[in-house]
Amino acid sequence: MKITAESIVMRAADDMHLHVRQGQMLADVLPHTMGWCGRALIMPNTKPPILTAEDAMRYKREILEAMKPSNDRITDSEPLMTIMITPATTPEMIFAAKAAGVIAGKIYPKGMTTNSDDGVIDYMALDDVFQAMSECGLVACFHGEVPWSNCCLDREDKFLPFFANIAYAFPKLRMVLEHVTTEKGVVCVGRLPENVAATITPHHLVLTIDDVIGGMLKPHHFCKPVAKRPEDRAALICTAISGNPKFFLGTDSAPHPRGAKECDTGCAGVFTAPIAVQVGIHVFSEAGRLDQLEPFYSRFGAEFYQLPLNRRQVEYERQPWTVPTAYFQSEVVPLWAGRQLNWRLT
Amino acid sequence: MKITAESIVMRAADDMHLHVRQGQMLADVLPHTMGWCGRALIMPNTKPPILTAEDAMRYKREILEAMKPSNDRITDSEPLMTIMITPATTPEMIFAAKAAGVIAGKIYPKGMTTNSDDGVIDYMALDDVFQAMSECGLVACFHGEVPWSNCCLDREDKFLPFFANIAYAFPKLRMVLEHVTTEKGVVCVGRLPENVAATITPHHLVLTIDDVIGGMLKPHHFCKPVAKRPEDRAALICTAISGNPKFFLGTDSAPHPRGAKECDTGCAGVFTAPIAVQVGIHVFSEAGRLDQLEPFYSRFGAEFYQLPLNRRQVEYERQPWTVPTAYFQSEVVPLWAGRQLNWRLT
Repeated sequence: MKITAESIVMRAADDMHLHVRQGQMLADVLPHTMGWCGRALIMPNTKPPILTAEDAMRYKREILEAMKPSNDRITDSEPLMTIMITPATTPEMIFAAKAAGVIAGKIYPKGMTTNSDDGVIDYMALDDVFQAMSECGLVACFHGEVPWSNCCLDREDKFLPFFANIAYAFPKLRMVLEHVTTEKGVVCVGRLPENVAATITPHHLVLTIDDVIGGMLKPHHFCKPVAKRPEDRAALICTAISGNPKFFLGTDSAPHPRGAKECDTGCAGVFTAPIAVQVGIHVFSEAGRLDQLEPFYSRFGAEFYQLPLNRRQVEYERQPWTVPTAYFQSEVVPLWAGRQLNWRLT
Repeated sequence: MKITAESIVMRAADDMHLHVRQGQMLADVLPHTMGWCGRALIMPNTKPPILTAEDAMRYKREILEAMKPSNDRITDSEPLMTIMITPATTPEMIFAAKAAGVIAGKIYPKGMTTNSDDGVIDYMALDDVFQAMSECGLVACFHGEVPWSNCCLDREDKFLPFFANIAYAFPKLRMVLEHVTTEKGVVCVGRLPENVAATITPHHLVLTIDDVIGGMLKPHHFCKPVAKRPEDRAALICTAISGNPKFFLGTDSAPHPRGAKECDTGCAGVFTAPIAVQVGIHVFSEAGRLDQLEPFYSRFGAEFYQLPLNRRQVEYERQPWTVPTAYFQSEVVPLWAGRQLNWRLT
């Protein structure tokens, strides 16, 4: 990483948690990740969901097809495929997925977020699946919220004992607590053995619950898990800049058309792909630890997933630009819409 | 109060916290309160706000004019007027308001809710005003949230020490903690002397923070103070049904056109006027204390404000009906939109 007053050159990042959807939205959003990412872990909560090796390979072909126009410029971007773990998942499906090149299985709590109707209620019923994942080296990615709590503020913290139990029961299973949002969550992951890691999103580094419901209602700041208290955000920032390799980038960038957010029943998700690195530059430099940006964005994730580091370098130059108020014909409103930023990807 | 399987006859209620707005919205919403209310305490956060005796009397005339069409049927409904207390309010303005028939002054924290830019930051700078209110018997109604906390979950609890200090400093000042939402809030009011009371809204008896951000985002459940945790709602229910005369109805019914809620910067407020009593019937009968509905809705408020009890009786008959999905041309979405209710005002 090379930082000057006018330029930041860093290794291309890995986004270890990304929603790219399907069809036109897929074609729309992909370039906004490919520019600065070497790889991205593609979430399987599509409609219908990605449940098998075959689903994942079909989805991967769809993604590669959509990448072609941009690949004239960017030749080394790669989608990392996942399957959704449901109560119907079998060890055989795990082994088949691994053999096909899938690298992780995502466990959603039932009904907790976008397209999670096939999610899990009873984690203990998944022991055979976890054993199979452990044996073949498929990473287990958890949306870490219990589905049964009647208060959204508690769901992540209540999930932590289940997460810890699985970690101790399957010491060779590599596990990720996705989009950790609470102080207790980062402490828990920090204390668990080396098989356990967590992703942190850029938007959880800059939002608290007050940015959603503290003033006017802000649907474009609404996500799952919901942004928590100021103390929780402080813990996330301290953890991200700490250089602890158990914590790395997963943007959870999740595009929704304006109409699906600004309505009487709004979808959860924040679209950050176009500015994910700029958010990091802002947060890490405010904390005086810009030197930790590259490890968090571009190294710790690859190391945990046992992938070679990206070789491509990307450059940000100091050049003011204004984040669009919306992207695409479907009008996806990004985080920091309309805000002026100092750094631009060249 | 007379309760049979087919009918509930009760004294007309007093809504001790109501937003009726101005112009067409005023004409639209008034009949939905007049049907079941003898009196309503009219909030002064209009645009521009109601700051003086003259403002209040002008607003009262506007309201009485708008009530005329309905008054052919309902002859005893009465608006109880308030003024907004700001840093510019003087003791003279208090005495003039009292002399003109205003019965309460509302203290908003600056910038905390709809049209509160003129609100207060420094409560201690209001000592002269509180003294004047105490002397002449103008009730002090507090939107009980501090303006400076950076977490909406804390703002009410952080206001309580200020509230208690004012209560002890002015033992003859009648004070109301409006729309109390937390367990700590009801405990604080319960422990303070007899000059202190609180209103509870119907929507805070049925909503928690999960109804706003726990599943999909629900802008029509978004209000200030934001609905809190399940334990807080339980405390509100227990308090409302307890028969403690310090706690009484204030609906805070606050109509916003659909477009002001379903947008990128949504307004706070829940429109409950058409179903406020039905919500109470539901909550109080679920708790097995329907006998406490009339004291909470129709007696304790009048007694605290030193007003005679309403004489009109209203009747609800058991007849299923469905709450409209929206009211008026401006499409105000009510609480429980589309829900089937059992009791209908005759």
